[in-house]
Amino acid sequence: MKKIVTFGEIMLRLQPPGYGRILATNSFDATFGGGEANVAVSLSCFGEEAAFVTKLPDNMIGHSCRNILRSWGVNTDSIVYGGDRLGIYYCEKGASQRPSNVIYDRAGSAIATANIKDFDWDKIFDGVTWFHFTGITPALGGEMPEICEAACKKAKEKDITISCDLNYRKKLWSRDKAKEVMSKLCEYVDVLIANEEDSESIFGIHATGTDIESGELSREGYIDVAKQLCRRFGMKKVAITLRKSFSASINGWSGMIYNGSKACFSREYTINIVDRVGGGDSFGAGLIYSYLNGKSDAEAIEFAAAASCLKHTIEGDFNISTVAEVNSLIKGGGSGRVKR
Amino acid sequence: MKKIVTFGEIMLRLQPPGYGRILATNSFDATFGGGEANVAVSLSCFGEEAAFVTKLPDNMIGHSCRNILRSWGVNTDSIVYGGDRLGIYYCEKGASQRPSNVIYDRAGSAIATANIKDFDWDKIFDGVTWFHFTGITPALGGEMPEICEAACKKAKEKDITISCDLNYRKKLWSRDKAKEVMSKLCEYVDVLIANEEDSESIFGIHATGTDIESGELSREGYIDVAKQLCRRFGMKKVAITLRKSFSASINGWSGMIYNGSKACFSREYTINIVDRVGGGDSFGAGLIYSYLNGKSDAEAIEFAAAASCLKHTIEGDFNISTVAEVNSLIKGGGSGRVKR
Amino acid sequence: MKKIVTFGEIMLRLQPPGYGRILATNSFDATFGGGEANVAVSLSCFGEEAAFVTKLPDNMIGHSCRNILRSWGVNTDSIVYGGDRLGIYYCEKGASQRPSNVIYDRAGSAIATANIKDFDWDKIFDGVTWFHFTGITPALGGEMPEICEAACKKAKEKDITISCDLNYRKKLWSRDKAKEVMSKLCEYVDVLIANEEDSESIFGIHATGTDIESGELSREGYIDVAKQLCRRFGMKKVAITLRKSFSASINGWSGMIYNGSKACFSREYTINIVDRVGGGDSFGAGLIYSYLNGKSDAEAIEFAAAASCLKHTIEGDFNISTVAEVNSLIKGGGSGRVKR
Amino acid sequence: MKKIVTFGEIMLRLQPPGYGRILATNSFDATFGGGEANVAVSLSCFGEEAAFVTKLPDNMIGHSCRNILRSWGVNTDSIVYGGDRLGIYYCEKGASQRPSNVIYDRAGSAIATANIKDFDWDKIFDGVTWFHFTGITPALGGEMPEICEAACKKAKEKDITISCDLNYRKKLWSRDKAKEVMSKLCEYVDVLIANEEDSESIFGIHATGTDIESGELSREGYIDVAKQLCRRFGMKKVAITLRKSFSASINGWSGMIYNGSKACFSREYTINIVDRVGGGDSFGAGLIYSYLNGKSDAEAIEFAAAASCLKHTIEGDFNISTVAEVNSLIKGGGSGRVKR
Amino acid sequence: MKKIVTFGEIMLRLQPPGYGRILATNSFDATFGGGEANVAVSLSCFGEEAAFVTKLPDNMIGHSCRNILRSWGVNTDSIVYGGDRLGIYYCEKGASQRPSNVIYDRAGSAIATANIKDFDWDKIFDGVTWFHFTGITPALGGEMPEICEAACKKAKEKDITISCDLNYRKKLWSRDKAKEVMSKLCEYVDVLIANEEDSESIFGIHATGTDIESGELSREGYIDVAKQLCRRFGMKKVAITLRKSFSASINGWSGMIYNGSKACFSREYTINIVDRVGGGDSFGAGLIYSYLNGKSDAEAIEFAAAASCLKHTIEGDFNISTVAEVNSLIKGGGSGRVKR
Amino acid sequence: MKKIVTFGEIMLRLQPPGYGRILATNSFDATFGGGEANVAVSLSCFGEEAAFVTKLPDNMIGHSCRNILRSWGVNTDSIVYGGDRLGIYYCEKGASQRPSNVIYDRAGSAIATANIKDFDWDKIFDGVTWFHFTGITPALGGEMPEICEAACKKAKEKDITISCDLNYRKKLWSRDKAKEVMSKLCEYVDVLIANEEDSESIFGIHATGTDIESGELSREGYIDVAKQLCRRFGMKKVAITLRKSFSASINGWSGMIYNGSKACFSREYTINIVDRVGGGDSFGAGLIYSYLNGKSDAEAIEFAAAASCLKHTIEGDFNISTVAEVNSLIKGGGSGRVKR
Repeated sequence: MKKIVTFGEIMLRLQPPGYGRILATNSFDATFGGGEANVAVSLSCFGEEAAFVTKLPDNMIGHSCRNILRSWGVNTDSIVYGGDRLGIYYCEKGASQRPSNVIYDRAGSAIATANIKDFDWDKIFDGVTWFHFTGITPALGGEMPEICEAACKKAKEKDITISCDLNYRKKLWSRDKAKEVMSKLCEYVDVLIANEEDSESIFGIHATGTDIESGELSREGYIDVAKQLCRRFGMKKVAITLRKSFSASINGWSGMIYNGSKACFSREYTINIVDRVGGGDSFGAGLIYSYLNGKSDAEAIEFAAAASCLKHTIEGDFNISTVAEVNSLIKGGGSGRVKR
Repeated sequence: MKKIVTFGEIMLRLQPPGYGRILATNSFDATFGGGEANVAVSLSCFGEEAAFVTKLPDNMIGHSCRNILRSWGVNTDSIVYGGDRLGIYYCEKGASQRPSNVIYDRAGSAIATANIKDFDWDKIFDGVTWFHFTGITPALGGEMPEICEAACKKAKEKDITISCDLNYRKKLWSRDKAKEVMSKLCEYVDVLIANEEDSESIFGIHATGTDIESGELSREGYIDVAKQLCRRFGMKKVAITLRKSFSASINGWSGMIYNGSKACFSREYTINIVDRVGGGDSFGAGLIYSYLNGKSDAEAIEFAAAASCLKHTIEGDFNISTVAEVNSLIKGGGSGRVKR
Repeated sequence: MKKIVTFGEIMLRLQPPGYGRILATNSFDATFGGGEANVAVSLSCFGEEAAFVTKLPDNMIGHSCRNILRSWGVNTDSIVYGGDRLGIYYCEKGASQRPSNVIYDRAGSAIATANIKDFDWDKIFDGVTWFHFTGITPALGGEMPEICEAACKKAKEKDITISCDLNYRKKLWSRDKAKEVMSKLCEYVDVLIANEEDSESIFGIHATGTDIESGELSREGYIDVAKQLCRRFGMKKVAITLRKSFSASINGWSGMIYNGSKACFSREYTINIVDRVGGGDSFGAGLIYSYLNGKSDAEAIEFAAAASCLKHTIEGDFNISTVAEVNSLIKGGGSGRVKR
Repeated sequence: MKKIVTFGEIMLRLQPPGYGRILATNSFDATFGGGEANVAVSLSCFGEEAAFVTKLPDNMIGHSCRNILRSWGVNTDSIVYGGDRLGIYYCEKGASQRPSNVIYDRAGSAIATANIKDFDWDKIFDGVTWFHFTGITPALGGEMPEICEAACKKAKEKDITISCDLNYRKKLWSRDKAKEVMSKLCEYVDVLIANEEDSESIFGIHATGTDIESGELSREGYIDVAKQLCRRFGMKKVAITLRKSFSASINGWSGMIYNGSKACFSREYTINIVDRVGGGDSFGAGLIYSYLNGKSDAEAIEFAAAASCLKHTIEGDFNISTVAEVNSLIKGGGSGRVKR
Repeated sequence: MKKIVTFGEIMLRLQPPGYGRILATNSFDATFGGGEANVAVSLSCFGEEAAFVTKLPDNMIGHSCRNILRSWGVNTDSIVYGGDRLGIYYCEKGASQRPSNVIYDRAGSAIATANIKDFDWDKIFDGVTWFHFTGITPALGGEMPEICEAACKKAKEKDITISCDLNYRKKLWSRDKAKEVMSKLCEYVDVLIANEEDSESIFGIHATGTDIESGELSREGYIDVAKQLCRRFGMKKVAITLRKSFSASINGWSGMIYNGSKACFSREYTINIVDRVGGGDSFGAGLIYSYLNGKSDAEAIEFAAAASCLKHTIEGDFNISTVAEVNSLIKGGGSGRVKR
Repeated sequence: MKKIVTFGEIMLRLQPPGYGRILATNSFDATFGGGEANVAVSLSCFGEEAAFVTKLPDNMIGHSCRNILRSWGVNTDSIVYGGDRLGIYYCEKGASQRPSNVIYDRAGSAIATANIKDFDWDKIFDGVTWFHFTGITPALGGEMPEICEAACKKAKEKDITISCDLNYRKKLWSRDKAKEVMSKLCEYVDVLIANEEDSESIFGIHATGTDIESGELSREGYIDVAKQLCRRFGMKKVAITLRKSFSASINGWSGMIYNGSKACFSREYTINIVDRVGGGDSFGAGLIYSYLNGKSDAEAIEFAAAASCLKHTIEGDFNISTVAEVNSLIKGGGSGRVKR
């Protein structure tokens, strides 16, 4: 049985070991990741029944990807096989003043070239409670905008809650195209996860008082963005992650949830970063878990922030933390005492 | 010739490389460690003649363990061979808000199932000046409480100084059993190393003004604990390590020694942690070295704190720092300039 | 074609992985490095045509070293082959209060035993604009002081700008010998890179108000050192790197350039260190690049400081940062946001 | 849905990388394996629905084990959690004249201390066609002989085909105990996998003309053993693996199936061994797959032999070969041409 | 200066360490390789001035590829930068009866999408003596057939010797298309390297008496193929590699050269394979080196066979053997005595 | 207590992982080895009390070397500390037709520059039964010939059995110098280990009927060499290792002992080589062990051959096999069956 379905691209992530640079490496650590898969894995590690839907090439790379998803307990029964390749992203970990670098090599992937007939949403959504995708999925091009819309439509019909992480990727599509497509899709969305930059890039929504590069954030600005989003699309909740980029090694991290009338801010964590990729996705998973389990907004934002704080301390895209670990952080304050 | 004898369990330590998690690893770095062995290794690296006494299985795992101890110069002549297995502890390194995790798999180990006749303390203590054990050794169960008592009794007869690190492990024995056994053994102890939590857990001694989880420490509280311990058991010295757990990556670290009338506190180090396991043991070794070499309490606590500060920067249980390195830290203040 | 020539020793650098200690390692990461080679590699990565001149043993170790230099685009055509061995330096990375350690095993290297006839400077300098060496090159002994002087003389004849990094190595030569040789060579130097310690060690020049071990620096003191150097040797520029050694993990880092009349200080970076070896060399390369490309003193010192800040975040001796990366740091302030 | 159930112990396998020896290693490759789990994984890789039943400790080691099984598509829904530890086996890979070594550390494992009430065989066998276990499972002691018998009884009731790999482990039980228990269990077995040594050890059945150490095998002897087993226990099929141990690096490998009236021998492979552990299990999985898919005895023995030949070329306990790969070997003769 | 130009695709090669399988790996060794690049590297290691021409993406992956080529001394000045990606091939090493597997992910690579205007052959061929390409280059599609023809035409004009390795890749183009394009290009070729399968696949030329799968080769058959090729296209030489595929671990290896009138066969080597990828390319490089250095056909085929025999013992696509090593094998017979 | 003393150089051995080549590596496996140290380690692993005497630099490299020796139980109490460096040898492992390569970088090592006063042989030989060295020790130059002679003289005085492995290294000294020094030292030797090449190189003794490169050996030739050696120097025993170099991957291996009247040949092993370095040393250790334990010549040569056969299957210079393992090979014939 599955309760949550996420849909999107999963890629092979190739990263030089440690702080190695792509220019000077002769091996890559190989993991898999992608926004929606990351959410499914995290939910599965929280004990939820989560399925990930995508299209994978029918070769050893595709099978390996499926195996890893299966290992984390993610339901892979609705994955379609075919197409030419799995998308890749090369990643080098930044440190201190040197930023992390990502090179995408995702064009022509099986999912980006998928066909609307590949996915039988009625069947996929059988028994499902929550559907999650990100703005990257329609940005993949081809028939993906239509497929996303079909999924949303069907989900709505079946009274499934829909969440979306806005995630604008300027290399995948133009602002105009993004605005056109995402405006349509956002009409279906119940819970939107966004950040100030993406709101600005896609919808031209701007929060005053925030300097992105410096990482200085204004609380009021974020509430303002959320309000505008709610007003425009009628979502029930808008959640925003608040990252203070002190350096590639140290970030401030917290979150905000706005429910149409009130905003709750989580505690802020100062994090010594192990791997920040997937931080936003783990936040999304934390939110979904919280709402599926009846938490209040205030509890949800604390859970989501703590979950994604832990993600920053774990290698790879996936937040493999458990609910017990997240709760322990919320209660204990992150003192880092050894658990024996 | 040997001057110091330590007695206890040494385990195989299995740890995923780097910040890897046990759930996601396919290899383990393999080292060995255990409170009393750690003390023996550190003392040997300080140039002292230290012997470690235990029981090891007579197979390649046991022999490998002995070889590693030998490599650090520890006298292994009194180790007994037999029994079924070497205890194991799995360890994953924490980072930032994610704590380190330890899974013990030590039941049925050769030493836990040792027989009182395995150890001829009269012979083992021949020519020895100092005997060290921890509260973990009797907690291993079986005949270990009796064996510890026999060792202490013999050591006392031979006028050997006895030190003990209280180290309460709730998974090994109950508070009641711990109190019963440790109360008896503490009668023999000259130098006790403790911390507030263990004193509270075992003896119900409580220091006011200290919040363990938050890492906030009150100097007066620590002095109070030491005083109570001295009063109850008549030790000459009680030493306490003062850890401020800011996170799994950054700790404050210092120490205190109380000699029955006066307390000396060391400088406090703020440490970027490489590996905190064995921190307390390296503190103990620093103390023993100091007293064996005629240092004052004030010098001893600085030496022990600096030695254990360095341990936190070294992978594995063992503090392989030299006396020169410790002294260099005491003098230089830890500026981290390259030694060429 | 080549524009810049650097001359000196390059060594095999053997380092335990991660924070491993030499005493406890069973493998070494193998890279190559040396002050002047580091400068050539950095300049090549900045897009300049840089040649490195040295003598390498005619075996697989020497060839491997040449290959690595070639891989970074450094012109190796003037390298001479022969001699017995490549010098080695063992390096263990420090952390927090534990300093990095370097053991040199460089005696008898091909370059240290080179012959004055090995290098035809007239040919080497054909078409060249800038010549760089460090105080380590003449300190290698044998005929190296004479070879350095011959190179400087020929460079002056050809109107080539000469830069030198003072770099005193007390294990290679005495203060007296260093003073004698460097005084002569400094007469040729246009741009000197120095620091307070080396100026003191070699020339007895002392800046007031600076405590080396503590890392406390006084701006006035540094200007004073630069002035004294300019006055004594008539350089056009004296650049000084300002390191605040908080610990082996965290340093403050900035630079100063004095042009005979005015001093410019760069922004100061607080760095979480990945590898500080070669930090000074990358600073030198940043300066040379800046002056070759017509930057002002103020721009040059910002570029050099940012370049060398990035070096501290990269494993190995070489700063493989690009001009774009350095400029991005200067503009963006090192917030460490992921580059997608 | 599941078609095949296997039941037994799975252990953590710790092995030094490459040809490293346990005595000289400082890391272990960590995989999982055990006779029945190996069969389940191979069947799942063949596309069959296989479930593995065992008891795992409810900690990260147990969860990691479950995750790996899941990654290969094995149904883990009937696994029970609890108990103290996962059994371990240390393994060092032999080469040439040096044999592989295995050290078992499996006492006290969750499965060995399992309770008869842990397993609801009626539910576990719902919809199942084939049940497989080995002689190791009852040899684990405690209630395991009873649990095995209960499973066999229930399987028989449900008309499930039962296969058993005789696998005598002298360190787990005596010959007398093995004979007593296995004689009872063999009454239920439809397909027995055995070898000459185990038949001799457990049942005193001896084939003439075979020298185990030398690896010289007589066809007639093997047929004779199979006949005796069939006659004594009334199995439908007895399969025997025929290993010629030339050295730890090179083995001859083939198989025989006897169906009560006729014996079929497979082609013999001369194998350059990568990892021979699990070779017999992959043979068993090949047989089960063959009979589930309606192959004749002659086809089945070729399939099983080819499958297990491939296993010898794959690291770890698991034969992750596909049916296509096995068929390609059967057809192509193992010429090892690159598949592009 | 450059003497030899090779032209084609170079790919990132991703391979699990050791005998690891793609399905079960979490890291890839990363090297680069491709038929024509392999030839250029080998020629450079033989001391020849070799240039490789291709189009690389202008990102860190492309730059890393260029750096590796440069490290081996290959002239990279004529490489063009642009396009979207570098092609990839995943490779898993076979062992014994398990064949090596290659998964290509090369569609959309910079070179496959190159433009005829990207390459100024007149300039590229300035001062060049020999031009080499393979049948893979035109098979990449897009404008590549035209670009190859333009290169051949210009080379012919400049009296440059042209060699081609037939190399049919059925996944890249159909037999008909291959026949059409290669027939045209072969008109320009002076030295053709082929094997029986490719001659059959592309031109329908068939040698009697050879069973490809079994690896049984008939000398007469090979001479016959060469004769037919010479007759049809008027090449001066046709060289054929003769591989006996005993298994993925052990191959027989030799070569034949036919000069229009006479065939010379080399000695046959029985090889314990380390890495067979690039074996044919190293054979080609051996031939080119031989003819550039005035060797006779008999000497050339021995040199080429010995060179490519050594390649099979070296990890990666590149044959980094030196002329001295090849000659030592020719003289010494491969006894494998340590060179001290 | 120590029974056997060996004396000579131990070096740091740096080797690329697996079959990697020095030209293409970026890391080295780091072990230690040297003829006499190898003998001491093997004897210690056989349970004998063996001491190794040398001079090591007083730095972390020297201490690390001592620690490794200690780990194997070798007595290191007579090691002298001082001098400049530890000698190094770079080693790349051959495969098939590609031979292993060794690059020595040993000039200027602590032991090669040792002083005759560094070693107090009277004290070193206290209680000792056997003294072993090789022809490499005096070849190190400086005062080493004199030191060796002093050691031999003192050993003779004390009635200690002296064994020597002839081991000619042409890069260390000339034939003339070798002959002069070794002739003198051989007068003291009781048991000489030699091979045909070294006997020829040093003493001009030639065995007819042996072609070194091809690996074809004549039994009569070897007996003849042994006879000549015995006659010239009056040794009690001359042992010769008989290596058939089929390739770098496969060797034939056996040994012969001649006792002045009769020759015994061991069984011959065909070995799939893991690491052949130290093969001869392990043979020597096997002989010494045999004679110390009262074995006959026939038993001794079987033990020595089997011991050194096992060494070829173990990574590193050291034969860490046990007596039980050697005896098991002698009895069992090396069938490579798993030891459980």
